[in-house]
Amino acid sequence: MSERIRVGILGYGNIGKGVELSVSQNPDMELAAVFTRRKPESIKTVSESARVLHIDDICEYKDLIDVLILCGGSATDLPEQGPKYAGLFNCVDSFDTHARIPEYFNSVNEAAKRSGKTAAISIGWDPGLFSMNRLILEAILPHGESYTFWGKGVSQGHSDAIRRVKGVKNGIQYTIPVESVIERIRNGERPSLTTGDKHIRECFVVAEEGADKAEIEATIKNMPNYFADYKTIVHFISEDELIKNHSRMPHGGFVIRSGDTGKHFEKKHIAEFSLKLESNPEFTACVLTAYARAVVRLNREGKTGALTVFDIPIGYLSPKSAEELRKELL
Amino acid sequence: MSERIRVGILGYGNIGKGVELSVSQNPDMELAAVFTRRKPESIKTVSESARVLHIDDICEYKDLIDVLILCGGSATDLPEQGPKYAGLFNCVDSFDTHARIPEYFNSVNEAAKRSGKTAAISIGWDPGLFSMNRLILEAILPHGESYTFWGKGVSQGHSDAIRRVKGVKNGIQYTIPVESVIERIRNGERPSLTTGDKHIRECFVVAEEGADKAEIEATIKNMPNYFADYKTIVHFISEDELIKNHSRMPHGGFVIRSGDTGKHFEKKHIAEFSLKLESNPEFTACVLTAYARAVVRLNREGKTGALTVFDIPIGYLSPKSAEELRKELL
Repeated sequence: MSERIRVGILGYGNIGKGVELSVSQNPDMELAAVFTRRKPESIKTVSESARVLHIDDICEYKDLIDVLILCGGSATDLPEQGPKYAGLFNCVDSFDTHARIPEYFNSVNEAAKRSGKTAAISIGWDPGLFSMNRLILEAILPHGESYTFWGKGVSQGHSDAIRRVKGVKNGIQYTIPVESVIERIRNGERPSLTTGDKHIRECFVVAEEGADKAEIEATIKNMPNYFADYKTIVHFISEDELIKNHSRMPHGGFVIRSGDTGKHFEKKHIAEFSLKLESNPEFTACVLTAYARAVVRLNREGKTGALTVFDIPIGYLSPKSAEELRKELL
Repeated sequence: MSERIRVGILGYGNIGKGVELSVSQNPDMELAAVFTRRKPESIKTVSESARVLHIDDICEYKDLIDVLILCGGSATDLPEQGPKYAGLFNCVDSFDTHARIPEYFNSVNEAAKRSGKTAAISIGWDPGLFSMNRLILEAILPHGESYTFWGKGVSQGHSDAIRRVKGVKNGIQYTIPVESVIERIRNGERPSLTTGDKHIRECFVVAEEGADKAEIEATIKNMPNYFADYKTIVHFISEDELIKNHSRMPHGGFVIRSGDTGKHFEKKHIAEFSLKLESNPEFTACVLTAYARAVVRLNREGKTGALTVFDIPIGYLSPKSAEELRKELL
């Protein structure tokens, strides 16, 4: 590609900042502008030269941006922004409410088809790289079982749930995969497991002064959906400790497929994909950026509508040509 | 898909047998026929009902086969068969001579373009699934290093090299990844490594009666390209022991990407894809079969020519519809 891909960022939280960093690592790309609902002058970007604009001015950039990366949340931002901006730009987002993906796909697809744009939805590592591994390994080993483990990492939803408990000032929750269960699967066992069998939930809680800690602990541990079905550990710590030791955002996980071949299914095979990430948002941002490259190329070839990781040939993710890829990486 | 995909197998060695087994695990497929250069009546297939024909009769099956899986070797079979049969059938093969892939791709591509057929080349796990991981992870984490380890598993080329040594009656070679090196990489180190630093070569040798074992060992250990650059271990065993303990074909390996994000590359990320296979040929055959499904679908959509794992959207590998995949696996 002779001309650099011009990337727009919508929303400048942890993911938006990660995309800015990721674009700077890719010489075939450049940051066109960051768009925000906040006052642009209140945003401090990583690079001092980055242009920050109010979201109301985004239409003026219709011909100055090749792809817009939507960095908002799945609860309220993306259901509105996804279809809206797919009507104006090639887009990439990390919509991750698994149960609502079919509905979200349809609404973005319709908008993108109408505008002649291309939109990659639900990009990241889960949904994303983990989904790819679930699909590929199930297709290759149809007789078998797949397992997904998450962690060790912070769950935003569970941390929010803790912070809503009466008497809790602040808190964070780590999802931790149960190593002994992973070992059993790696050794060829194929147990039936609930999410609760596979994960421990460890909570670090800052209580308000005078709050009843025993009551807080019981409330957390018995919270339906979030904690009741899990082995849950609650630690009380000071706010200083929370800030000092729990401000990073590591995450990761595993997809494991255990399957058999042979006339009597007598030969076992184990395939595993794992991630160990020091920054969940920065890694997710890198996946978004690679798919931004793919979306621009696919649109130039006339492919429009919504796409997922299942639809995009992976060669489109790399800045290298098909010839180079076959020579160097195949 | 309402009608089953009719699969032809060309060549009935370990891979061909594996494809027969794999097709029987996929309800949307059926085995049309096995083609062989040997006398058809000399072939004993897994299923007694399988049709075995001489390769000279293959043209009569032009309209009775949706995809032909080429199960021959990369040294002499595929360079001839790949372009030849891509002129008649949709094809899948496991061409694995990395250095000659560009040339092989071009010859198959030309033939398939001319015939309006689709051919997936170099399908398997390396090249194949490992190549996919190398590409995806490099595209996502451009600032980093990738490592590929093979084993523990039998290397056919190295086993052949042992058997050519004077005084050797029989022998087998296992490639073994160095665990301590893998651990260093998993912990975030990024060493510069040769293939020899990453692997041990363990040989089990049956000597001819009266042969000079010390000389055999020295000849093996000093063999250029094959063993001289590696830590090589040689064991002498009896032929009975070789047959009893070394007739299985396990293999496996790892692709690891270690990369950084952040303004000062201060956040480390480790991604790893690994395989532990009890039967290398049967697993490879399963990958071929899944790509056979993809090739048939792509050809029906009008996509012709040669393709690799980099060009084929992974959704095509699964018998499930795009809607089902988004709902169940994304």
